[in-house]
Amino acid sequence: MNENRKKIETSPYKGVRDFYPEDWFIEKYIFSVWHQTAERFGYSEYSSSPLEPAELYRAKSGEELVSEQTYTFTDRGGREVTLRPEMTPTLARMIAAKRRELTFPLRWFSIQNIFRYEQPQKGRLREHFQLNTDIFGVLGLEAEVEIISLASAILKNFGALDADFEIKINSKKLLEDLFVSFSISAEQAKKLSQILDKKEKIGRDVYEASVKDLLGGKAGEVIYTLDVNDRLRERIEGTSSMKNMEELVSRLEAVGVRNLSFTPTLTRGFEYYTDIVFEVFDTDPANRRALLGGGRYDNLLEIFGADPIPAIGFGFGDVTLKDFLAGRKLLPEYHAGAALYLCRAGDTAYEELVRFADRLRKAGLGVTLDLSGKKVGDQIKIADRLRISFVLCFGEEEIKSKKYRVKNLKSGEEKILREEEISEFIRSYS
Amino acid sequence: MNENRKKIETSPYKGVRDFYPEDWFIEKYIFSVWHQTAERFGYSEYSSSPLEPAELYRAKSGEELVSEQTYTFTDRGGREVTLRPEMTPTLARMIAAKRRELTFPLRWFSIQNIFRYEQPQKGRLREHFQLNTDIFGVLGLEAEVEIISLASAILKNFGALDADFEIKINSKKLLEDLFVSFSISAEQAKKLSQILDKKEKIGRDVYEASVKDLLGGKAGEVIYTLDVNDRLRERIEGTSSMKNMEELVSRLEAVGVRNLSFTPTLTRGFEYYTDIVFEVFDTDPANRRALLGGGRYDNLLEIFGADPIPAIGFGFGDVTLKDFLAGRKLLPEYHAGAALYLCRAGDTAYEELVRFADRLRKAGLGVTLDLSGKKVGDQIKIADRLRISFVLCFGEEEIKSKKYRVKNLKSGEEKILREEEISEFIRSYS
Repeated sequence: MNENRKKIETSPYKGVRDFYPEDWFIEKYIFSVWHQTAERFGYSEYSSSPLEPAELYRAKSGEELVSEQTYTFTDRGGREVTLRPEMTPTLARMIAAKRRELTFPLRWFSIQNIFRYEQPQKGRLREHFQLNTDIFGVLGLEAEVEIISLASAILKNFGALDADFEIKINSKKLLEDLFVSFSISAEQAKKLSQILDKKEKIGRDVYEASVKDLLGGKAGEVIYTLDVNDRLRERIEGTSSMKNMEELVSRLEAVGVRNLSFTPTLTRGFEYYTDIVFEVFDTDPANRRALLGGGRYDNLLEIFGADPIPAIGFGFGDVTLKDFLAGRKLLPEYHAGAALYLCRAGDTAYEELVRFADRLRKAGLGVTLDLSGKKVGDQIKIADRLRISFVLCFGEEEIKSKKYRVKNLKSGEEKILREEEISEFIRSYS
Repeated sequence: MNENRKKIETSPYKGVRDFYPEDWFIEKYIFSVWHQTAERFGYSEYSSSPLEPAELYRAKSGEELVSEQTYTFTDRGGREVTLRPEMTPTLARMIAAKRRELTFPLRWFSIQNIFRYEQPQKGRLREHFQLNTDIFGVLGLEAEVEIISLASAILKNFGALDADFEIKINSKKLLEDLFVSFSISAEQAKKLSQILDKKEKIGRDVYEASVKDLLGGKAGEVIYTLDVNDRLRERIEGTSSMKNMEELVSRLEAVGVRNLSFTPTLTRGFEYYTDIVFEVFDTDPANRRALLGGGRYDNLLEIFGADPIPAIGFGFGDVTLKDFLAGRKLLPEYHAGAALYLCRAGDTAYEELVRFADRLRKAGLGVTLDLSGKKVGDQIKIADRLRISFVLCFGEEEIKSKKYRVKNLKSGEEKILREEEISEFIRSYS
């Protein structure tokens, strides 16, 4: 050891998080609501390694994204490996690999970490967790209705109200129809989409100037049409993309999802989207960020040489969600996993305590056994600091009387119980 | 899309796994038993990123391990990053960072993926999951007793019997005392430990030859003493390391852990162990591999320039465990997360089904809604292929009568229920 006494830093790698029990408790709460809601909707959980062949992302994202915004390195076997920056390509790969054995329509979800190489800032880290939910094999709007309902149900299961979030919807096909109505070329349309994608970031002035640069004389009318939904509706009335959008909104309202906002400037970055796209925003002006986003991507399996399978899904990150929940005081208060701290009174044989604890554990109770060797008063302080709700002091007296005094540290309430009553009594509180 | 039509492979990166829902179901079962048992013993869950500064491993493992057996790369900021090959250094780092705020004794666990750059083979992958449980802040054997009891309790909670596994125990201090009794130098002792560590891999002949090469004339007696426990006991009788070992065995037996085997040749690779080490082996001759391993490491915090804190823990991997459980038919059978498949009869409005499903979900039931658009008979086949236990056909008739026929696809049993009875009826089966 002596030759290595230079001090090593205790901070984590830049832009990633250590999760102490209090922090992980919050993450697990988030994961549990994600998990439970997705299962209630009939979604099955899958998973994969964060290590993926780099070519998986090159196909649809281009060299620039892979080399500048991902962790990509070459392994000693000469393989280029990327730490997944999103889950959808992995999902498409897994489905393409077993498409003949899988049962469609298919509903899957995952809760996994994803990695982006970027400057850490509020709400943007180099690693975060993301819920991904997807439907494969459904062409009709039933899939849009379900996946957007699911997003809404998750937020409500966290305790959010309709007024707390807004679901912005758009359609890539509708934008195409709009651009065609202005005789905008395919090349210009692509650039215009990129400008729209950055609209909120670059600010109103730069946005308008960029559109004018690109479109010249048409720019004013294009900008106005994108701003005023009635004008836009008029302009492409009767197109199948506009009818589709109207039907989607009316079907979502019919199943109780009403906080919708048709937002023609919403494009989302990923190239693989083919039609409907959506994002859910926090309505709090202090936190106007997307909580989740997704859309329809009917052609992604083509990159594997497979026949396309229609698909729709969304990704829902933990970082902005945590800010959203914290802002509305919707996060739970930390408590230990074990409900009982077993204090050692006097010099009772340690093995006696272990055997007693083991019997309570078998009855379904989480039991933390004192290992501090301190006085009982100090043991109770430890229990309190660990956020354990109940204490029981075990010693010669209890061994003889077979009666146990269980104390609730929050309320101060005490109760004398027989051994077989302890587990049920304590569990009735949680 | 057209410019990218070259076909991308659908297989995962070499040596890692895709987890389809049936596979992930098994992993989640393993995680849940790990999680529940650790919480019952009063352990709190922590987590961290798999990305760690490479220097964290250099300090105790040396350049060779980092550059040849880990994934280590340089990020664009010039930082050397390693994908964690084990959890203990991360744990020590996190504890060193907050040692003044944390409450000791501290019991923590984590269930995380770890990465090793090695040739994939049976039981050894480039990424696997590992349970890590550790106690910090206890010098006495109570910590050994608890951590080994916990390992044993986990195996029993999986349904294993005492006869299914063997707990091998040794002590690094005891080995040192033994080596001193043979006047083996510190340098030779280090080499001898490395030979012992590889004993099972290299085979008996190479083992004996290596010891003879190293120790010359003493080799025969050393090998014999390491083989015959009574001889070894005699040789170092009365040393504190031998007394400690005997006390540990007797205390473990007093709390019901009896399948112990004192194994003086057990060393475990990691340099950071300071005293007791242990490994749990499958007793099936076809699968004689370590299921888990750990030991005491009282000095690891020194690498952060912090005062040492006594510590003991173990790591328990998912891959060998899954083989162990599969061999004993202790793995559960797959079923879908949702218990009810809601069939759509006739051309019932889709929104009617959604509203009905949502009410059942709010009552706590997982409901998969048909999106296939197929005939009812085919919908039921889909439910069966998805391993969903119950089906309910919803149509105009049900909307009128408000009576619902729920069918158990396994038993064939049918029951006609009112809406408010459905959730409880189905949940009573799980």
